Amino acid sequence: LVRREVVRVITPGTVVEEELLTTESNYLMALFKREKVALAFLDVSTGEFFVTSVKNVDEAICEVLKYSPVECLIPESFEEVEELEKLVKNVRRIEDEQFNLKRSLEVLKDVANFQALELSEEEILACGAVLNYAKNSLLFSKPALKLQKLERSEYMVLDSTTIKNLEIFRNLVDGGRRGTLLDVIDKTVTAMGSRLLKKWLQRPLLDVTEIERRLDAVEELKEKSFVRRVLRETLEDVYDLERIITRLELGKANPKDLVALKNSLKAVGKIKKFDFQSKKLRDLVYGMNPMEELCSLIEKAIVEDPPANVKDGGVIREGFDEELDELRKAKKEQEEFIKRLEERERKRTGIDNLRVGYNNVFGYYIEIPKSKAKNLPRYYIRKQTLVNAERFTIPELKDREEKILAYEERIRILEQEIFERIRREVVRHAEKVKDSAERVAELDVLCSLAEVATLYNYTRPKVNEGFDIIIRDGRHPAVETTTKFVPNDVNLTENSRILIITGPNMAGKSTYLRQVALITILAQIGSFVPASYAVVGIVDKIFTRIGLVDDITRGRSTFMVEMLEIGRILNNATKRSLILLDEVGKSTGTKEGLSLAWAIIEYLHELGAKVLFATHYHELSKLENELAGVKNYHFRLKEENGKVEFDRKIRRGFSKESYGIKIAEMANLPKRVVERAYEILNSENVNGEVPEIVE
Amino acid sequence: LVRREVVRVITPGTVVEEELLTTESNYLMALFKREKVALAFLDVSTGEFFVTSVKNVDEAICEVLKYSPVECLIPESFEEVEELEKLVKNVRRIEDEQFNLKRSLEVLKDVANFQALELSEEEILACGAVLNYAKNSLLFSKPALKLQKLERSEYMVLDSTTIKNLEIFRNLVDGGRRGTLLDVIDKTVTAMGSRLLKKWLQRPLLDVTEIERRLDAVEELKEKSFVRRVLRETLEDVYDLERIITRLELGKANPKDLVALKNSLKAVGKIKKFDFQSKKLRDLVYGMNPMEELCSLIEKAIVEDPPANVKDGGVIREGFDEELDELRKAKKEQEEFIKRLEERERKRTGIDNLRVGYNNVFGYYIEIPKSKAKNLPRYYIRKQTLVNAERFTIPELKDREEKILAYEERIRILEQEIFERIRREVVRHAEKVKDSAERVAELDVLCSLAEVATLYNYTRPKVNEGFDIIIRDGRHPAVETTTKFVPNDVNLTENSRILIITGPNMAGKSTYLRQVALITILAQIGSFVPASYAVVGIVDKIFTRIGLVDDITRGRSTFMVEMLEIGRILNNATKRSLILLDEVGKSTGTKEGLSLAWAIIEYLHELGAKVLFATHYHELSKLENELAGVKNYHFRLKEENGKVEFDRKIRRGFSKESYGIKIAEMANLPKRVVERAYEILNSENVNGEVPEIVE
Repeated sequence: LVRREVVRVITPGTVVEEELLTTESNYLMALFKREKVALAFLDVSTGEFFVTSVKNVDEAICEVLKYSPVECLIPESFEEVEELEKLVKNVRRIEDEQFNLKRSLEVLKDVANFQALELSEEEILACGAVLNYAKNSLLFSKPALKLQKLERSEYMVLDSTTIKNLEIFRNLVDGGRRGTLLDVIDKTVTAMGSRLLKKWLQRPLLDVTEIERRLDAVEELKEKSFVRRVLRETLEDVYDLERIITRLELGKANPKDLVALKNSLKAVGKIKKFDFQSKKLRDLVYGMNPMEELCSLIEKAIVEDPPANVKDGGVIREGFDEELDELRKAKKEQEEFIKRLEERERKRTGIDNLRVGYNNVFGYYIEIPKSKAKNLPRYYIRKQTLVNAERFTIPELKDREEKILAYEERIRILEQEIFERIRREVVRHAEKVKDSAERVAELDVLCSLAEVATLYNYTRPKVNEGFDIIIRDGRHPAVETTTKFVPNDVNLTENSRILIITGPNMAGKSTYLRQVALITILAQIGSFVPASYAVVGIVDKIFTRIGLVDDITRGRSTFMVEMLEIGRILNNATKRSLILLDEVGKSTGTKEGLSLAWAIIEYLHELGAKVLFATHYHELSKLENELAGVKNYHFRLKEENGKVEFDRKIRRGFSKESYGIKIAEMANLPKRVVERAYEILNSENVNGEVPEIVE
Repeated sequence: LVRREVVRVITPGTVVEEELLTTESNYLMALFKREKVALAFLDVSTGEFFVTSVKNVDEAICEVLKYSPVECLIPESFEEVEELEKLVKNVRRIEDEQFNLKRSLEVLKDVANFQALELSEEEILACGAVLNYAKNSLLFSKPALKLQKLERSEYMVLDSTTIKNLEIFRNLVDGGRRGTLLDVIDKTVTAMGSRLLKKWLQRPLLDVTEIERRLDAVEELKEKSFVRRVLRETLEDVYDLERIITRLELGKANPKDLVALKNSLKAVGKIKKFDFQSKKLRDLVYGMNPMEELCSLIEKAIVEDPPANVKDGGVIREGFDEELDELRKAKKEQEEFIKRLEERERKRTGIDNLRVGYNNVFGYYIEIPKSKAKNLPRYYIRKQTLVNAERFTIPELKDREEKILAYEERIRILEQEIFERIRREVVRHAEKVKDSAERVAELDVLCSLAEVATLYNYTRPKVNEGFDIIIRDGRHPAVETTTKFVPNDVNLTENSRILIITGPNMAGKSTYLRQVALITILAQIGSFVPASYAVVGIVDKIFTRIGLVDDITRGRSTFMVEMLEIGRILNNATKRSLILLDEVGKSTGTKEGLSLAWAIIEYLHELGAKVLFATHYHELSKLENELAGVKNYHFRLKEENGKVEFDRKIRRGFSKESYGIKIAEMANLPKRVVERAYEILNSENVNGEVPEIVE
């Protein structure tokens, strides 16, 4: 009678079990390359499903870094697998035949909006592969999927190095979330909102109208601080609807999920009553569907605090199902009979401390103290002897006990059947629930942006189609939360589009570079920005070369990696791009590094892009006089009574000093070493001729 | 009647469930700081338990990095928590009162060898905290623990930066295991061996005698290749005994664990019969205990392929327990009765296609085609109506069914009881099993080292108390497995203890530095080394400053981090240390960086340590003439017909060229940029005066 379920193979990309997931998106990805490279992403735990195409494998890698899929399917014949395997733990090679047009169309026809999309063959094959794989692994039962096609031309391009260097999703220290842009601006209160905010950061917009609509919504929510508080409290009552509905669709939900769904829909009902001015907020709220009937069904059927497993019983409410009620009643009668039996047997035997008990091995028994266990009626059968007592059963008791066990088994099975019926009813409405879930997510993100704007005193940026980026009192959104921060301006205009930034180590060059990029990104997702005033002309791509990531075991030196990145930047940047370069050239001989830096700036000047170029090469300051769009800026260090201080203010002009030995002193190098370094600095060891090669 | 177990709170450091663990060690750590810092580590899944003391928090961080605990307990008053939280996801602050001497001694008295150890108060408190926490979380039932006290003076010190930079356990690319030293030399076939090898790498030895003993064992196993093969095949049959016995001790084992234990002990029995020459191998094998009686008990009691859960039934073998056999027989009789009942009722009613069936909701029923379901005996009670048939029950059938359900319940409970009895018997011998497990682990590691030595053609190093490190044809153990590798010599002696290494980027400087350190580490764990000949004078500490790890969001610049590390190295190195420095000084102004490098070399020369110093500062080559222990070496680049080639051979003397622009060209920088860079290199932009500060 032991029933077993079909055991499924869980792979990282096809997990739907709550215990095995974080609240983050959990993407299964498939890649297919022919002329273009198509990437399909499916989060089976939420039903999110999208496809995008990129020009080459490099760009594909960038998408992979952005979405961090946990599992990735590639055709066996795909060759550039090494890069991919660095980023994705589970890369699975699938036979090429599996990327098959017929099979793909077969499985895609279940996707509601598939006909409405214009997909390339590569995209269809990638989507088909991902769906087929999920289907096989999950023993799918057709959840309602909607496919989204992402056009890269609609979003700002953030390449993989930039995402890393700007610490948007992961910090550079331990790869964790602390100190990242996402960490700072994520004040969402639902798991769905948190995932959506991440998506917004993965794809900042280029469309000024949509950005403005988001900004209007954020502004309204920022101003209405009381409404926002109540709204966020209500949002908190919405559980992870996307995941719950998917678990229900896949038959992996438990009774608690149903109750959570009901409570979430009730919260949706409350949210629908909120009244807003801005178009975005009105649209969002208007379309919400609290599905009262479904709520009422769940409420009637399921008890308020059910166990996590249907099999534990007590899931279905009294009064919902006649047969169940009867079985429960019948079981209860048997139990009551046993209670009465105790009283009766006391009278019959005249033994006052006779008692009916129960244990797991022997079942029900009648216990009688040893001293009195004599001359019992003949129908008493001995079961067990204890130190002070004897245990018996009687046919009647045995009979009732067997009945109770049988009723329990029946009740359990019937509860499971009813639960399954209700589950199916809920799944019929899956699409509507998903739609409300998306609206909740977006509302939550907008609230979060309003909350952040209030908390950290952000202002609304003016986003337009122009060239300029002008920021007053800009701050680094993450760094300012952990330390006293000195704001700085930036003026990037046609006449001042390349800034050469010099100054000592630690004065704040890298932070300055990063904050300009982060403010631009925030503006283009529709967020307020950490500044007192900001104009942001839409940027199409951001490139960075900051910090150093070594790649030595793969046979490339630091310098080679740097040059490869620079090559990629020069070949992909446009006039609308923003480029951050930090100490380019430092990992090779001094004169050669300087020459390269010089030539790179000339090239970018001709291209017309906006560039922030931090450097220790003082010679580069000469460029201001030669190129119309170049301006020198610098940070400096104050020395007073032998104590060094940074004021962290950026200023026009350039700085010659690097203060390297001073910083070494601050870092507790032995005093002898520091003093000796100063001596050497002024000796001809440093300033003299370099000897010729000796062998 | 539904029974529930006490649910325990699983924390990352107290997991013992197999599905939640990898084969790696899973440490719970407690830290207590007073004069010294004590660190106690407990792996509850294997029972491994050790404590160590370090001078300060910096050194503690280094231990944390080495052992990667998954959970860490600290007193609330401990302040330097930030560093720790970067490395350990789950840092728990415990009230200071919990670090209490009385409570600690209380819980430590259950640890068998506790009295024999000399522990400081800090150590006792750390051990107590860790044990108490594990006890509360696991609802402990006194597993047999043995505490090990690690003395740092017995092991080579590898600081955290060095462990990272040398890619011993994790690579720098993605933090994974691929391409690490551990990855290359881990050919172990048991989980226990794999964990022990990691421990050996965490603590290379300083004791020449013990190193030689390990080398003898490796040599013997290397020579006896056939014996090794058979031995490793036998080792493969040993399951993760440490984890199995711990799960048994904690009452979390399942029937499959018992069978695995039995099969493992049988393999131990086979291993015990191997005959060896070297002391280490003889000792290991001699002490193994195959525990025949225990094996035989398990064999008699448990079926060969039991289900994973006792509750699924069918775990206990027929013939082991009389009561169980009887219950099973009784159940079977009832089932057979029902079978006969079908035949009987057919005859009684005259309906040939009457049949007895079973379903989950209604239980047993008698099904009769509709057409014939008339004029049935009166004791037929209708249960259910189908389209073509009617289903009935009769009192007799109902009665038997209830009996079957009741027997099943009893059988299940009795099987659990017997299983528990056997578990307890096994646990009585836990210590002996653990001892054999340790021996298996060490044997597996030695086999692995022999296997690696054969596979990659390693040679036995001469390890001694001298100063020199002399290597002929040394290779980088990880890099050589992925690419054609050019071996290089190294001579580190009193007269040549500081090597200044110049040459172009990508020529192999960093790899060369790393391979010298890795060969030293391999020698001191008792492994053969990738070289044709090697003398290794015992090294007490290895320090490195290679590659760059940024720490910018924490307010420190690359250069500051570099100088902090250099400061730490200069303050902690001894004459016996090996120090690797790569491009020290490059992140600040050129002249200041050079002056610092110069002063640092002078300092280390006086100290007498062995140093490999890679640099682009050609000026440093002058030091060879000034300091007796300094020698110049270089790599070079061949240019033929405009094609560049590295020969990756290290040579005496120094190189002036960096070939930076050449490498930029190889990295596909636009041709215009490269040509322009060569022009600028020869212009006065680079060679002229630097302008004064302009504001």
